[in-house]
Amino acid sequence: MSRYLKENYQALEEYTPGEQPKDGEYIKLNTNESPFPPAPSVVEALKGEDVEKLRLYSDPTMSVLKGKLANLYGVKDENIYLSNGSDDILNFAFMAFGQDGAVFPEITYGFYSVFAELHGIGYECVPLREDFTVDYKDYLKRDKLVVIANPNAPTGDMRPLWEIEEIIKSNPDNVVVIDEAYVDFGGESAYPLIDKYDNLLVVRTFSKSRCMAGARLGYAIASKGIISDLEKLKYSTNPYNINRLTATLGEATVDAEEYYQEKCKEIMSVREYTKERLEAMGFLVLSSKANFLFAKHNKINGEKLYLELKARHILVRHFTNDKIKNFNRITIGTKEQMDKLLEATQEILKGETI
Amino acid sequence: MSRYLKENYQALEEYTPGEQPKDGEYIKLNTNESPFPPAPSVVEALKGEDVEKLRLYSDPTMSVLKGKLANLYGVKDENIYLSNGSDDILNFAFMAFGQDGAVFPEITYGFYSVFAELHGIGYECVPLREDFTVDYKDYLKRDKLVVIANPNAPTGDMRPLWEIEEIIKSNPDNVVVIDEAYVDFGGESAYPLIDKYDNLLVVRTFSKSRCMAGARLGYAIASKGIISDLEKLKYSTNPYNINRLTATLGEATVDAEEYYQEKCKEIMSVREYTKERLEAMGFLVLSSKANFLFAKHNKINGEKLYLELKARHILVRHFTNDKIKNFNRITIGTKEQMDKLLEATQEILKGETI
Repeated sequence: MSRYLKENYQALEEYTPGEQPKDGEYIKLNTNESPFPPAPSVVEALKGEDVEKLRLYSDPTMSVLKGKLANLYGVKDENIYLSNGSDDILNFAFMAFGQDGAVFPEITYGFYSVFAELHGIGYECVPLREDFTVDYKDYLKRDKLVVIANPNAPTGDMRPLWEIEEIIKSNPDNVVVIDEAYVDFGGESAYPLIDKYDNLLVVRTFSKSRCMAGARLGYAIASKGIISDLEKLKYSTNPYNINRLTATLGEATVDAEEYYQEKCKEIMSVREYTKERLEAMGFLVLSSKANFLFAKHNKINGEKLYLELKARHILVRHFTNDKIKNFNRITIGTKEQMDKLLEATQEILKGETI
Repeated sequence: MSRYLKENYQALEEYTPGEQPKDGEYIKLNTNESPFPPAPSVVEALKGEDVEKLRLYSDPTMSVLKGKLANLYGVKDENIYLSNGSDDILNFAFMAFGQDGAVFPEITYGFYSVFAELHGIGYECVPLREDFTVDYKDYLKRDKLVVIANPNAPTGDMRPLWEIEEIIKSNPDNVVVIDEAYVDFGGESAYPLIDKYDNLLVVRTFSKSRCMAGARLGYAIASKGIISDLEKLKYSTNPYNINRLTATLGEATVDAEEYYQEKCKEIMSVREYTKERLEAMGFLVLSSKANFLFAKHNKINGEKLYLELKARHILVRHFTNDKIKNFNRITIGTKEQMDKLLEATQEILKGETI
């Protein structure tokens, strides 16, 4: 830290991203990336001439990609906002709509509290129920910015649409953010409600179900007013924040919708297979509608399992928060990768029982 | 605007980027892009497998690219910060170091005042001298965040290093930002001063001299403390904001330094040629060390010339600010492009004299 940093930020604790090993020797089940590459048509979409055109700025309005997404979801262009990953939208949401304070679950995406701290927003973290699910009743009539990841992370819990609607309906004077990073793995999206509720902000990403974490592309679906607020902040910070190549790849991705739907189904099927196998080994595995499982075993503490797996070149995500420290979040990879995880886990557990 | 937007931002006037025509039928001399593509080795650097790897997040530490840039400039990795374009760094600079207010020239990059407004920072805009140059004495002992584009835009004026050093030296309790977006076209960089002054923040970009405006890559060179402040803000907003492809292309770009040096020389030579020709037509052309010229003619007002050129499919940048409304900023393209501009301008001027 320099001696020049504004006082407000001096005590700020930044977000800690999951480990990104550089040696490539790990089965990487720690940051909820897809085990599948983008669709072949997406890989082929990038030509040498696209790189040559990089001398030119990208279109800050992202009109082509915006149009394609609007068409896919049956909304208007004015209901779509595109960004450099969905974190960018979440940051703007706290910045633009957090003036009355914020409320979100105690166990959820760890970045929400960082955004609140960054922007000096008072926030309340509501404990989950005993079974690690979100109780929608805790978010009714809060008169604050409400932020719900649905499915939630790292738990995988999915709230039905009617509960989400109750939250939106009962907070008409504040924005309700539904973070749907994981919705494509069996969840139900809230975006059809944007015409009914102008306070709903649905946040999505190409990082998980669209196999493009490294391309940095997120989007929001919301009422025209909310979208124009996000655009105002974008044009006041970094108007060209989506690069040309990502825009081109994003367009090809929307065109390859079928491939991604198929891959999502495959991940859901491997998820249920992995859950059954873990349960058969004695794990408590939370019901998940995301591309990960959250699991614990009473014979081994979470950190130890994480370290033992890491020693076997398998990375899962461990959190130090007291209430979940015995769990690990396991990203769903290919069936082969999950079999290796299951095998290694079996071996580790055997060591524990002796 | 929605009724939810935080009061602070309701009156905010966002930055207006230069026109980005979508039909490609223009000679585009309006946004200071390079007329040259990235180096052949950069175009070849991107493989299909890089797109396949987009399923994985990028390395948020950008360690490889950081190392290459540190090596190029003979500084340490800890002195380099990488970002999604240089606007991102400028935004963070106002956010992190603007607590005592800010001061910058009245005629300069139009985004500075937007950043100040966004973050609620009081700012002072200092008029240029009569000849449209920056008077360094106006920035001594200001006890505020000082922001100087050097060369300045849209004027092209370059201040010598000793003047910049005087500014840095006389504001020891505040950060001095030297925005060197255009330094590679004949300017002298301030970065060798970072060891001497821990309040110096040099901001650079791959958008102009590195022919990659559309890739979104900027960087800062500064003392370890300032760099760690920028990193803190990055990890509190959008840690993965540089995508994998841009990182790969950025690395190849640093390796192709010679190509870019050569292209910069070519642009400088075409700039001087264009300046002479415009002067021969009776234009007042400010002395420029950037990849653009700022010029006016007393026979035609700036807006009219801009519109007449646009009608001939040549785009230059016109600003409505009263003090410079008779000027146009003309990006230096290839010699062929500049000849077309000169020919069209001659034709337009002929129409005016009849």
